Amino acid sequence: MSLIVQKFGGSSVADAESIKRVAKRIVETRKAGNEVVVAVSAMGDTTDELLDLAHEVAPIPAPRELDMLMSAGERISMALLAMAIESMGHTARSFTGSQAGMITDAQHGAARIVDVTPVRLREALDEGAIVIVAGFQGFNRDTKDITTLGRGGSDTTAVALAAALDADVCEIYTDVDGIFTMDPRVVPKAKKLDVISSEEMLELAANGAKVLYIRAVEYARRHGVTLHVRSSFNNNLGTIVYDPENPAAAAFAAAHLKSIRSASAQGTESESAMEEPMIAGVATDLSEAKITVVGVPDVPGKAAQIFTIVAKSGANIDMIVQNVSSSTGLTDISFTLPKSDGQAALTALRAEQEAVAFKSLAYDDQIGKLALVGAGMRTNAGVSAKLFTALYESGINIEMISTSEIRISVVTRADTINDAVRAIHTAFGLDGDADAVVHAGTGR
Amino acid sequence: MSLIVQKFGGSSVADAESIKRVAKRIVETRKAGNEVVVAVSAMGDTTDELLDLAHEVAPIPAPRELDMLMSAGERISMALLAMAIESMGHTARSFTGSQAGMITDAQHGAARIVDVTPVRLREALDEGAIVIVAGFQGFNRDTKDITTLGRGGSDTTAVALAAALDADVCEIYTDVDGIFTMDPRVVPKAKKLDVISSEEMLELAANGAKVLYIRAVEYARRHGVTLHVRSSFNNNLGTIVYDPENPAAAAFAAAHLKSIRSASAQGTESESAMEEPMIAGVATDLSEAKITVVGVPDVPGKAAQIFTIVAKSGANIDMIVQNVSSSTGLTDISFTLPKSDGQAALTALRAEQEAVAFKSLAYDDQIGKLALVGAGMRTNAGVSAKLFTALYESGINIEMISTSEIRISVVTRADTINDAVRAIHTAFGLDGDADAVVHAGTGR
Repeated sequence: MSLIVQKFGGSSVADAESIKRVAKRIVETRKAGNEVVVAVSAMGDTTDELLDLAHEVAPIPAPRELDMLMSAGERISMALLAMAIESMGHTARSFTGSQAGMITDAQHGAARIVDVTPVRLREALDEGAIVIVAGFQGFNRDTKDITTLGRGGSDTTAVALAAALDADVCEIYTDVDGIFTMDPRVVPKAKKLDVISSEEMLELAANGAKVLYIRAVEYARRHGVTLHVRSSFNNNLGTIVYDPENPAAAAFAAAHLKSIRSASAQGTESESAMEEPMIAGVATDLSEAKITVVGVPDVPGKAAQIFTIVAKSGANIDMIVQNVSSSTGLTDISFTLPKSDGQAALTALRAEQEAVAFKSLAYDDQIGKLALVGAGMRTNAGVSAKLFTALYESGINIEMISTSEIRISVVTRADTINDAVRAIHTAFGLDGDADAVVHAGTGR
Repeated sequence: MSLIVQKFGGSSVADAESIKRVAKRIVETRKAGNEVVVAVSAMGDTTDELLDLAHEVAPIPAPRELDMLMSAGERISMALLAMAIESMGHTARSFTGSQAGMITDAQHGAARIVDVTPVRLREALDEGAIVIVAGFQGFNRDTKDITTLGRGGSDTTAVALAAALDADVCEIYTDVDGIFTMDPRVVPKAKKLDVISSEEMLELAANGAKVLYIRAVEYARRHGVTLHVRSSFNNNLGTIVYDPENPAAAAFAAAHLKSIRSASAQGTESESAMEEPMIAGVATDLSEAKITVVGVPDVPGKAAQIFTIVAKSGANIDMIVQNVSSSTGLTDISFTLPKSDGQAALTALRAEQEAVAFKSLAYDDQIGKLALVGAGMRTNAGVSAKLFTALYESGINIEMISTSEIRISVVTRADTINDAVRAIHTAFGLDGDADAVVHAGTGR
């Protein structure tokens, strides 16, 4: 008997009809002979409505109380989902984050999982029940308070449960058919990937791909959880995110490819899919801004000083580039960060201008970031050359470059980012055979 | 330092503005030097909305999941209330039923409190915090599941907390100024009572007075909790419900009367209020139906047989009257019960018609019940005579009579009940000096 963890986001349980549809899907998985654990988000706009209420009664809501408030949303959806399943004649039991043993630190609003003790879930499974767990929420042992996991929390709940229960696979249901080489809204011919390594997925998520949250991907990679990202609107097989070095995961991915192949009329097309493609996908991100610290003395320790100041402001830094030092003995240091962190970082830097001895600050929030990800580029020296050529031929200027072993990121003007993506997609032969039907949405 | 428990119902926290108003009131109580524990219901129509959703996904929702669902409502209101208080610069902490130590049996939807262990509340109070507790909900130790207390659950939560924390008083905030001799909607000249004994209040609540739930009154009486029923829309002193034989409670009631007297311009009016009035009030109830078991053999054991059958059907019986036995050796037994229990009781009786050997069943749901309550009638033999005379003079027919030491209940036609009440109110001199301004609503 396999154990399958399934995650359904807020749009999949937005109303009574959707809940019944999801319940039917869960029951089918159970009837196929699997043990089933489900992580569910709050219904549709519930979270936003609760947040609005909170801000109406308190300009800055107390974090402990905000978590208590927010956690009510999943209690509602999980109880409704369990009822719907029970009324179909199957046994279901819902559990809050704390009942499910989702132990976190005490950082309200963005708690980290420190332990998962799913004793009650295991008991319920042993009794033959389908288990429904509130996503997004946890419990701190010391304060005994309810916590929430922050953005993408339900994905993380699902992956953490899959790890703790040693599930065979963690299915993430979403409104697209899987992971695409590129956002199908920008590149209609974007190809759905049948499989992708967790390492590549991590780079894609870190660089703006919205289907999976980076935190859930990280957790899955660290704990060896195989993911299956698929649509809740059809029964198509989606994308397997797995660790190729784990034999069980590799076997799972191979079986998945075999199923896709046998489902397809022409078996030839997917034949070579297990060969490592050079490029897994392209991700873009328009949510960042660039700060340039101009005229920094070119002496050791200055970068450390600057980024200590920025870190203290609470800003999360992404790319860092130090431009070539000029003959003046001064250098410019540029970095990107979420636009929402921009003001805090600027204020912090301005306050220390004298200590750092820089000349000025430049802020640019009209940038776009583009990342090319693929394990294959490790062994393909020509990838960056091909990328830069494609951009050059489309007349797109590159403002920053940063690379890892399996990723190349470039910053361009925000308004050229879509042209850039299309040019790259074509240059690397990523265009699929048919237009992608479903548009990519934001995962919850 | 006094410890005050306050209960606010759903209409008092219906929206953000109401929540802020309630928060202000709580803060004022804290600023006056009291420790404050608040039991709060779900916002306005939340409970009904959640119930509707439940019935949309499942015709008969699983009871465990229904309780999980319902308990979300109070989580929302309590967190919002705590936030609102915190944003006024005071420390507040919200607790769910299980966090508050509200231990119940496992009867979902109508759980009974078996223990209250408010350890975390006491700790929070000792740290100077205002404590907010979710009304209506509890926790079963064996199943580790969330339960709800059923109708009037938040009143019961408040009273149980007051008992467990040895509070000085439990304030029940409602939309009327206190307990009235009669529903002010029916008798505009109904008088507000300044004090009432818990025994009398129990009879009033048991006979249909809606301001307090009988269960909460029972709990308060059994555990010696003094109640103060008052309006959340003004600062008027309300009605103290107390045990006159408890010296501390009697002192509290006396102080309350003194405050009312000093607040009133003419001190004379309330001067005699501590004297026991003959009649405390009149309650009506249109929610019951009458079943008559016709033609029962007049032999011992038949009543026991009938009421065992009815009890097994789950119906709650109120009044029982066995009519005078006729010369046929047959008798009729009539009883009243909630209309909602009527069908179950009829079905159960029909199934046993042969065993009981009765002739037929009559069902009547057009009855009205009226109860006259007052400790004073213990020593006033003429009360029932006066009551029956008043009804006779108004042309109202009495169908059933049942009495206790401090109460006389009669059943009449439903459509004559208001005329009956007005006649009695006048006959017993209960009319107040001014029309009651606020209309009575249903307590939550």
